[in-house]
Amino acid sequence: MNIFRSIEWLDSHQLKVLDQRKLPHEISYLTTSDYCEVIKLIKTMAIRGAPAIGVAGAYALVLASLNIDRENYPEFKQHIYKCANEIKFARPTAVNLSWAVDRLLKKLEKTLSFSTKEDTSILLAEAKAIFDEDIEINKKIGNNALPLINKDAKIIHHCNTGSLATVEYGTALGIIRIAHEQGKNVFVFVDETRPRLQGAKLTAWELKQLDIPHKVIVDSASGYVMKRFGVDMCIVGCDRVARNGDTANKIGTYNLAIVARAHRVPFYVAAPTSSIDLSIQSGDFIEIEERNSKEITRIGEYEITPVGTDVFNPAFDITPAKLITAFITERGIIYPPFDKNFSKII
Amino acid sequence: MNIFRSIEWLDSHQLKVLDQRKLPHEISYLTTSDYCEVIKLIKTMAIRGAPAIGVAGAYALVLASLNIDRENYPEFKQHIYKCANEIKFARPTAVNLSWAVDRLLKKLEKTLSFSTKEDTSILLAEAKAIFDEDIEINKKIGNNALPLINKDAKIIHHCNTGSLATVEYGTALGIIRIAHEQGKNVFVFVDETRPRLQGAKLTAWELKQLDIPHKVIVDSASGYVMKRFGVDMCIVGCDRVARNGDTANKIGTYNLAIVARAHRVPFYVAAPTSSIDLSIQSGDFIEIEERNSKEITRIGEYEITPVGTDVFNPAFDITPAKLITAFITERGIIYPPFDKNFSKII
Repeated sequence: MNIFRSIEWLDSHQLKVLDQRKLPHEISYLTTSDYCEVIKLIKTMAIRGAPAIGVAGAYALVLASLNIDRENYPEFKQHIYKCANEIKFARPTAVNLSWAVDRLLKKLEKTLSFSTKEDTSILLAEAKAIFDEDIEINKKIGNNALPLINKDAKIIHHCNTGSLATVEYGTALGIIRIAHEQGKNVFVFVDETRPRLQGAKLTAWELKQLDIPHKVIVDSASGYVMKRFGVDMCIVGCDRVARNGDTANKIGTYNLAIVARAHRVPFYVAAPTSSIDLSIQSGDFIEIEERNSKEITRIGEYEITPVGTDVFNPAFDITPAKLITAFITERGIIYPPFDKNFSKII
Repeated sequence: MNIFRSIEWLDSHQLKVLDQRKLPHEISYLTTSDYCEVIKLIKTMAIRGAPAIGVAGAYALVLASLNIDRENYPEFKQHIYKCANEIKFARPTAVNLSWAVDRLLKKLEKTLSFSTKEDTSILLAEAKAIFDEDIEINKKIGNNALPLINKDAKIIHHCNTGSLATVEYGTALGIIRIAHEQGKNVFVFVDETRPRLQGAKLTAWELKQLDIPHKVIVDSASGYVMKRFGVDMCIVGCDRVARNGDTANKIGTYNLAIVARAHRVPFYVAAPTSSIDLSIQSGDFIEIEERNSKEITRIGEYEITPVGTDVFNPAFDITPAKLITAFITERGIIYPPFDKNFSKII
């Protein structure tokens, strides 16, 4: 199996990015040393997936520290904080972006080096740590999930949560991969995930490389699939989990969770603890990004709707905690009451 | 407002068909005198929508009666029955096709003309009757629904059920149109309706012409829309209703009904009585058509999935009776128990 890294730091102090907008038909890399360019790549979803944009955001701050005259330390420091804010708000919903950037800033604050060169080294070391940890965390999530997965499990998966959405393995898709590697004979119904079709494009592409059997379905077919074939579980990722367990994730997650509940299908959220935001009380306070209407009105060069058609295009929705069976984290499986049980591990 | 008829019988004994595969960007008509061509247009969904394919099927049988040497009456009769079967099985799920064809055959059987010319006239008269009745039925459905529709109703609509899916007005969309004409200030959230995007392409096109305010959403956003904006009702059409009220309709209807129930949003099915099939006990016995995988894997010329991706593409699903608030028919609003109440009107 080939590994295509979503993001990679080069010794030449550049970030190499797999352009996910061109997948699955073209494997194309971009290389940049400009933090503004990384922000643009995050906004336009060349890099996407909550954990991956966290790592990319961290490296963007490293690039920002290299993108300035480094003689004047106060100016340098001011520049770092300005850039950190720009990076954190590239996309609003996933917490990982601000989590990663804040983690770098905290490291700086602790060290008090007063040297631009040393600060850059600190930032780079911390970004690399986040990168390395991401792989370990995903492996742990996958291993922790193993007892939940039946031998011939039929699983519905929404959006893309694989290597492309992280550094390696992935969260929900990482669970599926590890179960497959452990011989569990899983079968995946892949929600195509309109509007951006991350399921049909990216998840199908990853599953093909991993040789995991799957079929793509339209998002609205999940109920029929559960009724007709029997589904053992749904597994999704997350962009931000509130203290009470309410979860922001790709639009359509909420519908899938309602449909799963109606069929008594367990609904699991794969969540690195970095996605759990204890500062937010409930889903009501999570900002939901609305994206360009063209994501709905056209696919490729193909115009779908009549000219001038109005759309409503939220990129995420909120799945209330009560519809979630458990969170699968690197520190174990967390069952309700989530508020209480999150505080034991974070 | 321009009226674009989905189907029209020409005095030249030809059927004129609006090619819905080219909408909304091209208004293109096809004219044919060959019943096999009509079958092809139904299979490829140039003509679509349960009531419209019923009417088209009826006219196809008229064409079949003209497409044969009409000297030999027994041969003619045999030909009619052979063609009737071909037409009835052009698509399996919607009952309207076999309902319309059977209605023509019954008329023939009653008349016993023994004249090919007279038989053709009988078939044509009956096809025209079905055509004319369709408009009246839709108007009645729309008027019957009026008391259910709040003044500023926000409505979710799935697939296309308008003039394009019928002869005029439409079923679910006919209700919306008549409510709008009566000054009810309705707003429609239009499910795009993957995979064939009848909502984004056809419903948005019709609503634009009717000047009815609307926004297109991806199918999986319905739950978020209900939660965020408050939705007064869902209205859908149907392809076949079983005796117990279980309803076959476009894939995604079942998910929408589950999501509506979870939000206590009333879920209405607009159903001409011709769509109610009392010969079928429950949804378990309705055949669900599976269509070509390309409907999911490509849009226009745009290939979405990796080459060779497997898909599952059911064109319809079954919404169980218990999720349906009421059926709106031309003979009134039918509440549960459906079995008992259907038998009062049919």
